[in-house]
Amino acid sequence: MDEIRIGIMGLGTVGTGVVSLLATQEELIRRRLGVRLRVHRIADRSAHRKSAAGVPAERLGTDCDALIDDPEVEIFVELIGGTEDARTHILRAIGRGKPVVTANKAVLAVHGEEIFAAAERKGCPICFEASVAGGIPIIRNLREAFAADRLLGLVGILNGTCNYILTEMTEKNAGFDAVLKAAQEQGYAEADSSFDVDGVDACHKIAILANLAYGTPVDVAEIPTEGIRTVREMDIAFARELGYRIKLLAIAREVNGKLDIRVHPAMLPEGHPLARVGGVFNAVNVVGEYAGPQVFIGHGAGSAATACAVVADIIEAARWLRGGKKPGIPTAAFLSDGRMKKETLGRKEMRTSYYVRFVALDRPGVLSRISGVFGGHEISIESVIQKSRAGQGDFVPLVMMTYEASEENMQNALAEIRELDIVGEEVSLIRVESDPMAFG
Amino acid sequence: MDEIRIGIMGLGTVGTGVVSLLATQEELIRRRLGVRLRVHRIADRSAHRKSAAGVPAERLGTDCDALIDDPEVEIFVELIGGTEDARTHILRAIGRGKPVVTANKAVLAVHGEEIFAAAERKGCPICFEASVAGGIPIIRNLREAFAADRLLGLVGILNGTCNYILTEMTEKNAGFDAVLKAAQEQGYAEADSSFDVDGVDACHKIAILANLAYGTPVDVAEIPTEGIRTVREMDIAFARELGYRIKLLAIAREVNGKLDIRVHPAMLPEGHPLARVGGVFNAVNVVGEYAGPQVFIGHGAGSAATACAVVADIIEAARWLRGGKKPGIPTAAFLSDGRMKKETLGRKEMRTSYYVRFVALDRPGVLSRISGVFGGHEISIESVIQKSRAGQGDFVPLVMMTYEASEENMQNALAEIRELDIVGEEVSLIRVESDPMAFG
Repeated sequence: MDEIRIGIMGLGTVGTGVVSLLATQEELIRRRLGVRLRVHRIADRSAHRKSAAGVPAERLGTDCDALIDDPEVEIFVELIGGTEDARTHILRAIGRGKPVVTANKAVLAVHGEEIFAAAERKGCPICFEASVAGGIPIIRNLREAFAADRLLGLVGILNGTCNYILTEMTEKNAGFDAVLKAAQEQGYAEADSSFDVDGVDACHKIAILANLAYGTPVDVAEIPTEGIRTVREMDIAFARELGYRIKLLAIAREVNGKLDIRVHPAMLPEGHPLARVGGVFNAVNVVGEYAGPQVFIGHGAGSAATACAVVADIIEAARWLRGGKKPGIPTAAFLSDGRMKKETLGRKEMRTSYYVRFVALDRPGVLSRISGVFGGHEISIESVIQKSRAGQGDFVPLVMMTYEASEENMQNALAEIRELDIVGEEVSLIRVESDPMAFG
Repeated sequence: MDEIRIGIMGLGTVGTGVVSLLATQEELIRRRLGVRLRVHRIADRSAHRKSAAGVPAERLGTDCDALIDDPEVEIFVELIGGTEDARTHILRAIGRGKPVVTANKAVLAVHGEEIFAAAERKGCPICFEASVAGGIPIIRNLREAFAADRLLGLVGILNGTCNYILTEMTEKNAGFDAVLKAAQEQGYAEADSSFDVDGVDACHKIAILANLAYGTPVDVAEIPTEGIRTVREMDIAFARELGYRIKLLAIAREVNGKLDIRVHPAMLPEGHPLARVGGVFNAVNVVGEYAGPQVFIGHGAGSAATACAVVADIIEAARWLRGGKKPGIPTAAFLSDGRMKKETLGRKEMRTSYYVRFVALDRPGVLSRISGVFGGHEISIESVIQKSRAGQGDFVPLVMMTYEASEENMQNALAEIRELDIVGEEVSLIRVESDPMAFG
């Protein structure tokens, strides 16, 4: 065997990057793997408008089934994205006993259980490093490096678009809408950016990471998810004044044997390693009971970094083929009979500190009434900032930092405060992750 | 096969941690691996004074050969450290076809070529994640995650003792000797700390990383190595004034097809991710041509973090046994016929910016004479700080920051300046890594 033949479905940005990387690194890969990796066939729905160096036109078509069934195709690389079609194609490849490499977080977040189970039954690997945090090898490390440790938790900056927008808002004192528009013009955000800015993408990614970290199925519909649309310039300015940075965090940790999993903007102390991860970079902070805290930082997206992860996975699949298709590391980090459904933490048990910004009437007694409501819900106030006093009767921002409280108590308190005639409609609630290095 | 039996040589801090971790994580490991890992036998030269839970006294002895030869021992774990005895034992285990797990950087840095070749001939894995940067999975990532990328370079904080000392000196404005003494009293530094503070330990580690990153044998004797003994409080204060932090860096990068490899204190801009890695933490900054920069941060030492890495390696070795002993990832990241000796960069080609501190006579014309010598050696000055002017004739610190220059020119210039009667004997030379994220 002096070459291994690959079939690639999807010749978009990542697919083109993969074809190009396989060509430029051919010699390096041979020195590591011992054989050549050759792109044998490509399927893309716009195949007639595309070309790939080294792949003749007759093997660049639109028929995915034919590609998967082609006996010459030994490794199937799925790069079309989306959930339903991708699921069908991946399951078909597994059915043919072909190892699958994919960069598709959505299909794994939504259909991961079915896909992982099918792969294990068939003894066939699925490699998906590129699906989460682009070039950062977090999947590989959760499956291998942390195999001996109980994970206390992980906290990630997993969406490059949100991180870019929040960084720009922080550095340029600009508002969300203006920064999003500029980011779209510069190609840092999609034309339809809701998947990113509403936290859906980060939610898919943390679902996959939690699945691997804890050996549990995760239902994405159960993950409390908030995006960054509601973060105001004012909140970023207050955060800075208080010594924090606002990041969209995806969090999965074990609390009382349950899974505390969520996606939301959060304030991180500015000395925290993740607080300084700016622009389109991604980062993951993993804390093991024995290994302690570890931080991984790198490009979370982009054609080149993602292609690196995809090709490293193709190399892994090729090693599996060359090693006689013996089972190795379980696809989902845990063996299927070692997986255990972990209950999700409810709002009663979910605890954090909070930053709450009200727009409140600027007159005596307001602070006392609001803090009275908090007190009634067992929420203690750590500090208060009242800004820019105007004339009697005007509304001014009122910021309160709380000690740790339960999410349920906080939501109940806010519902009650919203009923008061002394606060305006806009209430900004941002969770504070004071020391995400020290979980548990 | 429902259990795999392990033989451990060396029951010191790490060995004890490994025995303990295997016991506490037994169930977690079974869920990932499918079998139990059992410590079958231990060898330690002070065995009569030691005990290990679950290992009966008759299988806790001093005879290493008997342990390796014991047909019940399936995985050999070497934790004695040092070079010569460890080499003999590791080669013996490979000879018996037993996978080896080791945390020993010295034996791999010095005898790596021989050991890697023996392992490849026998088709038998050596796992050594714990040998570099403790709990940070840098070995695994160089072997797997970066398999598709050409590495432009890597820069590491690889010695926890030095990082602790430099952090303490920076935060407490204290001198090297006082901080070292306190670190020894608190257990952060060995009684004989020369191996750490003179850079030997970091030199061993960068030799291993460069070997894997570039697929080249590395001779530790050829690595220019400087420790941190000569770093003065004054240098740390000047660094801070100039916006830098001083770290002991281990660097390996490709320059003009050659290997630029060295260990020395260096100034990093305070915004760089490695600049803020304090205390006993380690960090590695890897830059791939396609993947871009990645940073890994974690505990570089300590019984628990190191034991995590050792047990993850034991799990890898166990998977190899269960997978029918098929070849997988090459031990040295590259196949032996894919390895190519890379020439080491000479002092002529080695280029960096410099911080140079003289003790110079405080009188007119001194700056002109010194900068004249630099100019004569093609070294341009970027900035100058002259401090605490006293009366005529006194010596005062004179700090010069240079633009990039060759190491050879710098050493020649310094030799010439030292001859001048206007400077004192003490000259502090610290390299400046202005943007280690942007190699090449």
